[in-house]
Amino acid sequence: MSDVTARRRGRRPRTESEGTRERILAVAREEFSKRGYEKTSVRGIAKAAGVDSALVHHYFGTKEQVFEAAVEVAFAPALQARDMLLDGPVDTVGERLTRVVFGLWENPVTRTPLLAIVRSAVNNDTAATVFRRMVSTQLLARVAGEIDAPDAELRAELAAAQVVGTAMLRYVIKVEPLASVDVEQIIARVAPVVQGHLTGNLTGHLSGPPER
Amino acid sequence: MSDVTARRRGRRPRTESEGTRERILAVAREEFSKRGYEKTSVRGIAKAAGVDSALVHHYFGTKEQVFEAAVEVAFAPALQARDMLLDGPVDTVGERLTRVVFGLWENPVTRTPLLAIVRSAVNNDTAATVFRRMVSTQLLARVAGEIDAPDAELRAELAAAQVVGTAMLRYVIKVEPLASVDVEQIIARVAPVVQGHLTGNLTGHLSGPPER
Repeated sequence: MSDVTARRRGRRPRTESEGTRERILAVAREEFSKRGYEKTSVRGIAKAAGVDSALVHHYFGTKEQVFEAAVEVAFAPALQARDMLLDGPVDTVGERLTRVVFGLWENPVTRTPLLAIVRSAVNNDTAATVFRRMVSTQLLARVAGEIDAPDAELRAELAAAQVVGTAMLRYVIKVEPLASVDVEQIIARVAPVVQGHLTGNLTGHLSGPPER
Repeated sequence: MSDVTARRRGRRPRTESEGTRERILAVAREEFSKRGYEKTSVRGIAKAAGVDSALVHHYFGTKEQVFEAAVEVAFAPALQARDMLLDGPVDTVGERLTRVVFGLWENPVTRTPLLAIVRSAVNNDTAATVFRRMVSTQLLARVAGEIDAPDAELRAELAAAQVVGTAMLRYVIKVEPLASVDVEQIIARVAPVVQGHLTGNLTGHLSGPPER
């Protein structure tokens, strides 16, 4: 990347180019969420946004960087919320976390980039790396940091697994009745599981593999 | 479909054509698991198996039917196991179910078709329909049938969500440390959650949205 490009990317003028930049991101989110990472091309995004491919590269860099910028909109509120919710008492962190995540999924503005992340990460290693970087490093590691246990990271990941799996079955694969029930019903059942993974003693009553 | 085709498909001779059929299915599983449903073509499967596309259509029908036949190998042991495990006491069904599902994921033979299902269902409506039909109708509905609760289906789906989400983060997106820990550690933490969803009273200590 040239110095000029880097500088431009860092301090871009907030005028008409800002509108173009946002339009490109909106188109990119749509494309990635519908088609997944692999089938989406910078050329296709540029065409749908009515600009030249070179301009997309100029603003964002590689396709991976376009993807990161496009899905970032889902993480900005998630990270804000995370900082806020980690302030509360640890024995209700499960409900607060669950409520924030399903709030993002229920909101059409943040659902599109979340769909883009899930649809892309499952089929493409580059997108999976972005997912790991954003979700693990930024979100799960911070949540784990609040948990006082030697296996805090694993706990945070198993909590995330319940949430990610529920979101997949409800919003992506649309299994009924899960896809149609009120979100409060889901939060009421998922939150205690998230809490249990994070701070509970779930393994207490299990004693290794059964003898069969 | 002609009568002749239907008859052939039902009672095919178990000789050299059986070998060809199995070879096509093995290739199809690889293709679907690596590339997902949309990017896989009957033509590509035929080419990799060294046969004509017409033969693939002759044995299996449409691409959707090739997909179903290819992933069925993961469901045969799952359904056998299901019938077996539903025989046991209901208060340990969580551990038995969890153990069976992670047994399938840990086994390379059944992991490939499971990857094919996950990678395909997330990006394609046809594959998602196959997923719903196989998982919901055949597996979850049967598990729900064993649960004595008015919301048995939702319970079975939320239990499945914990398992599906854990499998996604461990085997597909490979988030650490979840991807590397011993499977027994995962079973020990996931099984109580599955049990709790199926037969527990998880919503007991929650009382609606917090006032914030």
